[in-house]
Amino acid sequence: MIAALAGGVGAARFLRGLLDVCDPVDVTAIVNTGDDVVLHGLHVSPDVDTVIYTLAGAVNAETGWGLVDETWAVMGALERYRGLTWFRLGDHDLATHLFRTQRLGEGARLSDVTGEVARAWGLGLRVLPMSDDPVETRVDVEGEGEIGFQDYFVRRRHAVTVKAVRYAGAAEAAPAPGVLEALSTASRLVICPSNPILSIAPILAVPGVEEAVAGRRDDVVAISPIVAGAALKGPADRLLAELGHEASVVGVARLYAHVASTLVVDEADADLAPAVEAEGMRCVVTATVMHERKDAAALARAVLDT
Amino acid sequence: MIAALAGGVGAARFLRGLLDVCDPVDVTAIVNTGDDVVLHGLHVSPDVDTVIYTLAGAVNAETGWGLVDETWAVMGALERYRGLTWFRLGDHDLATHLFRTQRLGEGARLSDVTGEVARAWGLGLRVLPMSDDPVETRVDVEGEGEIGFQDYFVRRRHAVTVKAVRYAGAAEAAPAPGVLEALSTASRLVICPSNPILSIAPILAVPGVEEAVAGRRDDVVAISPIVAGAALKGPADRLLAELGHEASVVGVARLYAHVASTLVVDEADADLAPAVEAEGMRCVVTATVMHERKDAAALARAVLDT
Repeated sequence: MIAALAGGVGAARFLRGLLDVCDPVDVTAIVNTGDDVVLHGLHVSPDVDTVIYTLAGAVNAETGWGLVDETWAVMGALERYRGLTWFRLGDHDLATHLFRTQRLGEGARLSDVTGEVARAWGLGLRVLPMSDDPVETRVDVEGEGEIGFQDYFVRRRHAVTVKAVRYAGAAEAAPAPGVLEALSTASRLVICPSNPILSIAPILAVPGVEEAVAGRRDDVVAISPIVAGAALKGPADRLLAELGHEASVVGVARLYAHVASTLVVDEADADLAPAVEAEGMRCVVTATVMHERKDAAALARAVLDT
Repeated sequence: MIAALAGGVGAARFLRGLLDVCDPVDVTAIVNTGDDVVLHGLHVSPDVDTVIYTLAGAVNAETGWGLVDETWAVMGALERYRGLTWFRLGDHDLATHLFRTQRLGEGARLSDVTGEVARAWGLGLRVLPMSDDPVETRVDVEGEGEIGFQDYFVRRRHAVTVKAVRYAGAAEAAPAPGVLEALSTASRLVICPSNPILSIAPILAVPGVEEAVAGRRDDVVAISPIVAGAALKGPADRLLAELGHEASVVGVARLYAHVASTLVVDEADADLAPAVEAEGMRCVVTATVMHERKDAAALARAVLDT
């Protein structure tokens, strides 16, 4: 059994490789919902959907999120009203949000609906939101004050300076049903190559999760999302620096050393392996950049074999 | 100034004719929201939207509701989830519901949003929901018990026997801002050719409205939605009979005599004019079936001239 803490695009690509090298029924993905957002009254779970769409082979390969062959009739019509269109929701993607919101309105838990969506896409792994309770990643932006995650990430295209990040509601949240069990029974725990601050930290902030992962530290392998000092996608490098961390595999090691015994870094960072090990983590060097599906499968195999 | 109590398709067609014969800025449509429904978390106002789309020349002329040249990508995608698709929302129509729901979530009143939607479609009249508060038309169906209006009307295609209708929440609702003022200042008040039980009665059930209309009785003209004993569209004839009323212009006269001094009936019902007058209403006989826009304009002119 494998349990993986997952954010969006990077995690989704890794998980796709993982499912290529092991039986999907053995995999539980515990996905960040700190960037969930209510738009137009609809509950949108961007990281969960990116994971599901990617694993279903239905993701827009160019962007890494959203659906392939998407159409935009609704967003186009919304322009008449000068409605909220900075967060663009494609027509087919909207169906997911309509379904999720309808089910939540009927009293279903987010974890129930997430399972239903995953099964509707034919997935064999278990996809769990980190919590059924609302946790909101909030970003304190220089000169603006605190704003919602999507306001920062999508609306401002993360082109602003971040002073602090917090996970509002986390203290009152409980892990979704199955999360703690998956963390305690898995033989291998993986921290996917996701943003440590924006994707992994919100999951760890749910009471009980960080303790559960730390308790399994010997079996936890983290994959660095930073390669040669830069994030492959998104603002992880810049954000790490802004928050006083080092934008390198060493900085990542410092963030993860208390919960993971092993850090997988890219060959480009081979020279930093001793510095990672100086942080108390074993350092595994391999190719971590997932250009193609086979790269992801090779990375997954390396993670399982370590 | 003209104030019109309006339901869906019949009212919308009449109002379009009305705007052809008078200045739109002189017209206030007070529209039924008893059949508003939350679907997928979205606030849908079917009668309001039918009025707005029709007046904008954007309605699907075949059905009388929804938008012309509509596409159905979202509903199609929803089938993957076996989601709620019995109430079909087209892609362009969905934009209206997304906008409305977003604005309500921001704290806007339904009357504010309704005005914004009407203006976005370039309309010059004032379109008001009957109330900013929730009023739910509920239908007691034989063998089933009480169900929501859209469950009755759309899902069961009104092919069930109705024992009673009530307007849940009406007693606690207030007329939307502008409603009572429009009713008191209009020189002509019109009850559009809508279902008396399902479209007009919910408006009258909002505290203060029935009294306000009755207080203007001499200036109120109702148009019968029943022609030759049948509804032109929808279940008005059957429903009237099921609830113990006569499915005829005489039955309509009995329902409206306390609030309207004049009933406009179709030429097909000319022989019933004395029976209508016996109910205490003046009866005006004219062509009321609106095959084309010019028919609606002629009917509007007759209503204004009476």
